[in-house]
Amino acid sequence: MSSANRSLLVVGSLALDDVDGPFGMQRDLLGGSASFIAVAASYFTNKVSLVAVVGDDFDEEHLEFLRSRGIETSGVERRPGETFRWVGRYSDDLTRRETLDTRLGVFAEFRPHLGEAHRSADMVFLGNIDPALQLEVVEQARRLGRVHTLVINDEEARQLAGEHNLVKAAAGVRKMGPDSVVIKRGDSGALLFHEDGVFAAPALPLEDVRDPTGAGDSFAGGFMGYMAHAGRFDPATVRSAMIYGSVMASFSVEQFSLDGLRNLTPAMLQERFDAFHNLVRFDRIVL
Amino acid sequence: MSSANRSLLVVGSLALDDVDGPFGMQRDLLGGSASFIAVAASYFTNKVSLVAVVGDDFDEEHLEFLRSRGIETSGVERRPGETFRWVGRYSDDLTRRETLDTRLGVFAEFRPHLGEAHRSADMVFLGNIDPALQLEVVEQARRLGRVHTLVINDEEARQLAGEHNLVKAAAGVRKMGPDSVVIKRGDSGALLFHEDGVFAAPALPLEDVRDPTGAGDSFAGGFMGYMAHAGRFDPATVRSAMIYGSVMASFSVEQFSLDGLRNLTPAMLQERFDAFHNLVRFDRIVL
Repeated sequence: MSSANRSLLVVGSLALDDVDGPFGMQRDLLGGSASFIAVAASYFTNKVSLVAVVGDDFDEEHLEFLRSRGIETSGVERRPGETFRWVGRYSDDLTRRETLDTRLGVFAEFRPHLGEAHRSADMVFLGNIDPALQLEVVEQARRLGRVHTLVINDEEARQLAGEHNLVKAAAGVRKMGPDSVVIKRGDSGALLFHEDGVFAAPALPLEDVRDPTGAGDSFAGGFMGYMAHAGRFDPATVRSAMIYGSVMASFSVEQFSLDGLRNLTPAMLQERFDAFHNLVRFDRIVL
Repeated sequence: MSSANRSLLVVGSLALDDVDGPFGMQRDLLGGSASFIAVAASYFTNKVSLVAVVGDDFDEEHLEFLRSRGIETSGVERRPGETFRWVGRYSDDLTRRETLDTRLGVFAEFRPHLGEAHRSADMVFLGNIDPALQLEVVEQARRLGRVHTLVINDEEARQLAGEHNLVKAAAGVRKMGPDSVVIKRGDSGALLFHEDGVFAAPALPLEDVRDPTGAGDSFAGGFMGYMAHAGRFDPATVRSAMIYGSVMASFSVEQFSLDGLRNLTPAMLQERFDAFHNLVRFDRIVL
């Protein structure tokens, strides 16, 4: 399929993470929602641009890596001070994590400034930043009439809607505005609630999981990236986007930081996509 | 498709449950693994027979209901004393349950005696009973070379294999004997690990859930029932069986006790099966 290659602006955090867990403490890892989102999306469109802020401790190598993925980084501001730092520890079975420290650093004063090219992006992904800042971005971006898709996890959906049942919670959230709600459920996959009903993207059972950090953001990046590639938002396309999101999340958790997203080939993406297809396919039976 | 209509023997517990939760205390409900398994299976083959024990407090109406589903109950022994009783309480969101009381009653002395017809059953489902009793049944049943499929939940799989990762746990359990392992994950669906790799059956997101009791047994009954119907155990058939198991579990949790499995029609089964098909279908994409 030829690519529509829509432009995608990602606004969010770039961070340095210290991650402890069953494989020992790993320090100064590239992290932050925007890095995972932009890199995951970069496998589907070569028009990804990034608006974020880093401190003077942020290794230029990380920005070079992002640029090597075709990501436009003129909107990454470098300011005096410390980059956003997250320190966390995973349980031995990697199912629970505890935040040991969060230091906002220069991210505390982050005010996204969109350049001319950014303002006319076809699609915008707003990472997990202060809602007031999200609103500022929306006001600057020309083509955004409204939020189309909200990507949140199950606990966030329950809290937002004040309702435990996920079907009811999703309906409640959709009433607040977004056309579609994607609910991420960790190693249980993700659910899409939209005009076409509900779609369940499975999680691929993986033998080797090293670092769940960024799994949800990798999902979101693959999801948005595929939609930018397809240039359509019909139900069948959005379902495929959910699977590409799951593909990127599955690669992400197999290695630390963004390492699982560094050297993917089209053949690897295809093989993993097909593994998802094989995971859930079954014949329609008439008894 | 014409039915192979294989005979299925179910050996397990019949119980009376008191279930508390967000809908208030419900008393003297028909429960026990064997009742859910046999009734769920009865929608796929009319050759289901049951070996179990009840006390003199077990309402004859319950046995009449089982017989109304075509289940052969001559192997249900009635003994003086109390039927197996389970008293439990669900959390308000129905995600956690606490056992308040378990009284084995006549089930404590249960020794399954297989009649001539039982011994020659094509398929046997061993419910969650003492492994020594399971072994006695296997020794009595003629056609059972060995265990083909083990159906357990995720925590059981992890404990049995001493391994948290489900892929590794399933591989460890398969090394102990069973060809296939089905791992039930509650409202995250179920995973099948077998010669053909892994298959993920989703859980259908439901708006109204009243009573999760028996969901796993309803799954198991639908799973076995469909295989008895099909008379084949090839990978495609087993995948469909996983979905029929999920169909029966989804009906089961919508009402208390076995009420959700009482009055299903072929059209209702088809509609629910198609809902699962629609839930996970997506096109295979080549980028």
